[in-house]
Amino acid sequence: MRIGLLTGGGDCPGLNAAIRAVVKQGLGEYGHQIIGFRNGWKGVVDGDVVQLDRANIRNILPQGGTMLGTARFHPHSAGGMEQVMATLEAERIEALICIGGDGTLNAAQKVAEEGIKIVAIPKTIDNDVYGTDLSIGYHTAVNIATEAIDRIHTTAESHNRVMVVEVMGRHAGWIASAAGIAGGAEVVLTPEEPFDIEKIVKFLRHRHKAHANFSIIVVAEGAAPAKGSAMDFEVQLGQYGEIIAGAIGERVSKEIQERTGFDTRLTVLGHVQRGGTPTPTDRILGSRFGVAAVDAITQGQTNVMTALRNDEIVLVPLEEIAGKLKTVPDELLRVAKALA
Amino acid sequence: MRIGLLTGGGDCPGLNAAIRAVVKQGLGEYGHQIIGFRNGWKGVVDGDVVQLDRANIRNILPQGGTMLGTARFHPHSAGGMEQVMATLEAERIEALICIGGDGTLNAAQKVAEEGIKIVAIPKTIDNDVYGTDLSIGYHTAVNIATEAIDRIHTTAESHNRVMVVEVMGRHAGWIASAAGIAGGAEVVLTPEEPFDIEKIVKFLRHRHKAHANFSIIVVAEGAAPAKGSAMDFEVQLGQYGEIIAGAIGERVSKEIQERTGFDTRLTVLGHVQRGGTPTPTDRILGSRFGVAAVDAITQGQTNVMTALRNDEIVLVPLEEIAGKLKTVPDELLRVAKALA
Amino acid sequence: MRIGLLTGGGDCPGLNAAIRAVVKQGLGEYGHQIIGFRNGWKGVVDGDVVQLDRANIRNILPQGGTMLGTARFHPHSAGGMEQVMATLEAERIEALICIGGDGTLNAAQKVAEEGIKIVAIPKTIDNDVYGTDLSIGYHTAVNIATEAIDRIHTTAESHNRVMVVEVMGRHAGWIASAAGIAGGAEVVLTPEEPFDIEKIVKFLRHRHKAHANFSIIVVAEGAAPAKGSAMDFEVQLGQYGEIIAGAIGERVSKEIQERTGFDTRLTVLGHVQRGGTPTPTDRILGSRFGVAAVDAITQGQTNVMTALRNDEIVLVPLEEIAGKLKTVPDELLRVAKALA
Amino acid sequence: MRIGLLTGGGDCPGLNAAIRAVVKQGLGEYGHQIIGFRNGWKGVVDGDVVQLDRANIRNILPQGGTMLGTARFHPHSAGGMEQVMATLEAERIEALICIGGDGTLNAAQKVAEEGIKIVAIPKTIDNDVYGTDLSIGYHTAVNIATEAIDRIHTTAESHNRVMVVEVMGRHAGWIASAAGIAGGAEVVLTPEEPFDIEKIVKFLRHRHKAHANFSIIVVAEGAAPAKGSAMDFEVQLGQYGEIIAGAIGERVSKEIQERTGFDTRLTVLGHVQRGGTPTPTDRILGSRFGVAAVDAITQGQTNVMTALRNDEIVLVPLEEIAGKLKTVPDELLRVAKALA
Repeated sequence: MRIGLLTGGGDCPGLNAAIRAVVKQGLGEYGHQIIGFRNGWKGVVDGDVVQLDRANIRNILPQGGTMLGTARFHPHSAGGMEQVMATLEAERIEALICIGGDGTLNAAQKVAEEGIKIVAIPKTIDNDVYGTDLSIGYHTAVNIATEAIDRIHTTAESHNRVMVVEVMGRHAGWIASAAGIAGGAEVVLTPEEPFDIEKIVKFLRHRHKAHANFSIIVVAEGAAPAKGSAMDFEVQLGQYGEIIAGAIGERVSKEIQERTGFDTRLTVLGHVQRGGTPTPTDRILGSRFGVAAVDAITQGQTNVMTALRNDEIVLVPLEEIAGKLKTVPDELLRVAKALA
Repeated sequence: MRIGLLTGGGDCPGLNAAIRAVVKQGLGEYGHQIIGFRNGWKGVVDGDVVQLDRANIRNILPQGGTMLGTARFHPHSAGGMEQVMATLEAERIEALICIGGDGTLNAAQKVAEEGIKIVAIPKTIDNDVYGTDLSIGYHTAVNIATEAIDRIHTTAESHNRVMVVEVMGRHAGWIASAAGIAGGAEVVLTPEEPFDIEKIVKFLRHRHKAHANFSIIVVAEGAAPAKGSAMDFEVQLGQYGEIIAGAIGERVSKEIQERTGFDTRLTVLGHVQRGGTPTPTDRILGSRFGVAAVDAITQGQTNVMTALRNDEIVLVPLEEIAGKLKTVPDELLRVAKALA
Repeated sequence: MRIGLLTGGGDCPGLNAAIRAVVKQGLGEYGHQIIGFRNGWKGVVDGDVVQLDRANIRNILPQGGTMLGTARFHPHSAGGMEQVMATLEAERIEALICIGGDGTLNAAQKVAEEGIKIVAIPKTIDNDVYGTDLSIGYHTAVNIATEAIDRIHTTAESHNRVMVVEVMGRHAGWIASAAGIAGGAEVVLTPEEPFDIEKIVKFLRHRHKAHANFSIIVVAEGAAPAKGSAMDFEVQLGQYGEIIAGAIGERVSKEIQERTGFDTRLTVLGHVQRGGTPTPTDRILGSRFGVAAVDAITQGQTNVMTALRNDEIVLVPLEEIAGKLKTVPDELLRVAKALA
Repeated sequence: MRIGLLTGGGDCPGLNAAIRAVVKQGLGEYGHQIIGFRNGWKGVVDGDVVQLDRANIRNILPQGGTMLGTARFHPHSAGGMEQVMATLEAERIEALICIGGDGTLNAAQKVAEEGIKIVAIPKTIDNDVYGTDLSIGYHTAVNIATEAIDRIHTTAESHNRVMVVEVMGRHAGWIASAAGIAGGAEVVLTPEEPFDIEKIVKFLRHRHKAHANFSIIVVAEGAAPAKGSAMDFEVQLGQYGEIIAGAIGERVSKEIQERTGFDTRLTVLGHVQRGGTPTPTDRILGSRFGVAAVDAITQGQTNVMTALRNDEIVLVPLEEIAGKLKTVPDELLRVAKALA
């Protein structure tokens, strides 16, 4: 078989593990041909391809990013769909493995509707893809964020400061919750739970008087104040209505500084959260997903997404996950609070 | 309530996260008293106790080891059981949280049979405790082993060598499988699958001729040759029939060196696998288990073990897990082979 | 002898190693008493003291920050000098070890002029203290910055982006040069060499056409455009004329994005650069400085700073270093350029 | 000019940084041709060459090992010298850059005597090359060893154990001293200072009674008992009189266990010390040495070794360093003792 392969959306650690597994399992186990498209859907539209063999994937397992390149590009807007179909036909692609997040999976769904056999592999450091316990990249992001909080913790303590750390997470607070618990943060703000700045201020005042004169506050970039709360405001959005990195962190820092008088500083982690060598968990997850995707195609199971459930790899129909979001469960949010 | 707390068996990263969570949830949420026993069951027998409060757990979250100390000590052998009961009565302990592996859980089961309310929290870097997807310490051990394999990989490649890495895992090959996949090992040997040295030799000869002239072989310390295979031998055991660190690794290295003529070197990772700062996953797991254990006791659910299943915390009756072992599933062993 | 000890200015990794060495050498070798002042000079003014013994310094070697606390506080402004002298007399301090950067050394000089015996230990992640090859904290900061650049590198390459990374360094470009070389940055901007944005733009256009379509630019926060260059502007300063974190990075990103059209992103590393576990180099440097400071006092050599020169510990008179700044030598700047 | 380049002896992190710098500076600054020999002197004898350009060195900066390969091979024994000269002539090599340790520098000296222009670059994780403050690879090895000691420390403390850690260092105790200080070891044994096991035992007994019931002992593989001391024995050597990894560590562990009765465990770090991603210091050192080597050749300064002195790059005549060894200075050994 000739199987196409692309990585779409924002890059993250673990993509290369999945690419390597697709190539090794595809060539080694079944003798398939694996055709890589460069820069996500853009490469499909442009016909930018590379036939992948063992030499291409040498030493990529521990490397961050994606050796195929990626781009935030939606073929179905701007009439790219015909181009997509033309390229797939020209390259005689029998099935397509799409590694990506919401945007890529959306596009994959559209392409599936045109009759192309699709297997999707979920990746997003935000971990909000529905239907799977884990997506590629999330685990490494939590590691990086926790390491940063560990570092910031010693400064907070030495200087008696409130340190605000903004992490990624537009629609779900997975990184904030996990890194908040792992880093021992006093407050964790997530999109799941709109916050009341006055309650936070009260808590900080009590803590700094009774226990310790420093605090760590972790804020997901998609966190927002509760309607009707003391700090009910519209978070500033970007040109296209998108969340702006640093916006909520800056506002929260300012409010705390002004309301408590405590010396308060902000760190916006930004791009470091999505780069560098993947953790073993992301390498293993990418490897298992890659093997499973090739197995699925070979066995004729398509229009599905590989997923991790109960520590096992399963296949989930694409239509089951379309338009859904996986948010942080109450138990985890509760643990974050209990350990503040 | 007065709740006892101990850590038993070999130490590992993440224990302090669990201790901290027990204390924070116990004191903060319910107003319980938490009585720590030093050095595992030995401290119960000796009446070596410390009442834990917020000051005791300060800054322990990112620290490896256990601030309570631990020991490999079985109270039920050597007639310690009466001493255990005497201490628990003297300290007016209403329930006991035992953080440990097989040995500790066994002892906990015995103590439960004497009428003491028990909640167990599973820890073992071997990850072979039955009934839970993850035990405290395993994840950090995989991280350390993978990092070591990454390091050894560059030497193997620069020197055209076969590098054998022995990792922990007496009865199950969890660390070997996970670190083997994550580190891109060519061969992974586990207790689950007895090996045939001649097949490995054949594979290495083929690989070094066709693809690359170096290889990484990861061996769990409990791996053993298949009965009737070319290298059918008794692995040397210790005084009490226990597995000796380095024994199987040394033998495998020697056989490969002699049979292939390839320059072959052994590294025995040893104690570094169980020390140092825990990964975020182990900190979060310890934190969730600790909170759940206190919740369980408070709600009267005892003689259970906290467990992770399907990414959720559940309680499993102690009797369900007694004497059982969790081994590596076929799918993971298969991925390790597919990506060799 | 009764020896005072304080850490002043911004915190950084390695301070605890120095504190531990002062205590161990002071108590163990000579039987001195070591009196710690909390929160730098503020603690001297306030009389906030703690007598340090072995229990205080347990396990602090691998910890970032300072167990004594620190503050940016200048006793000589605001008439604190009399308070300083009063506290030192009340505590019967015979000599004072001051661990700090420019500000602390300045204050130390003033206190020395009042007749107090001083030994200074240099610390600053900026590495610009004159008279020593290395100051405590710099080495760890370079490690953190390099690790961040490594992470950002994989994203730059996967997305074909220009990534701008702003690191610390107000008056000297040590972190930028070192992390720039270690991280393989294409452009390094330092206070030592005012830049011409048009030359950078030209270089990037050439590189992205000829070699690779991504680039990493490392900017020290004190970098500035050359007078009369295409981008001759005043960098925005803070309320007190101080450099604002992010200001130059943001401007450089914007100019490159607009002039080249390349997708350009900024990361401001910020506080993570000064926290967390120190590298072995900073632990060893702190340890050697601490031992040397106590030896110096005991031998009557005071009003000096401990320094590293030619890999040896020497003592430098305080007056020799006052008001001087150590900038990056040409050879290092040249290597950064050669390897772009 | 056509410049040859090889890496010889044991591999270590930072070699690729030097290779990259030689290629970038050679091609970019001067338009030289750089001819790489594979697997050290073996490649010169065999005529195994590769012309290096920008594509070859892509992404190698953060990688351990050497992209040219290496081997422990001495051309001057076994009559390889004629072959060496023949290859250099056939390849029209005008000057040769040799990156290596003692063995490689020795061979380089011999080749220089035959009239070939040589510039050597020192590398050895043992750091015992004479004439330079630092050799490539040492710094990363210290980092790895310190990290291992940090991990082992938490286990030692949790289990009340004596942990013995054997690190590399056959003729000099650089890694042992540095990692011993950085890791807070109680005892550091080096080749520089023959030890008396009874004194160590006495110290441990005192410490475990008075202060803490655990200890870390770091042993360089070349450490040996003092003549006439309580444990005066011949350390077991290998077939060719070489030091055997683990030999001294095992003996020291056994003696301590037997003489003190303390639970004592050994970890032999082994090959992990020489692999994996280099620290920034090793990347920068390799980069500076590589640039300096090409500059030296271009300016006609040959038969020299690049060296770091007083934080500056200098050139040292090969004859000045022949047969000399750089051992650990007293001050560093003294600090290790003072902080025990």
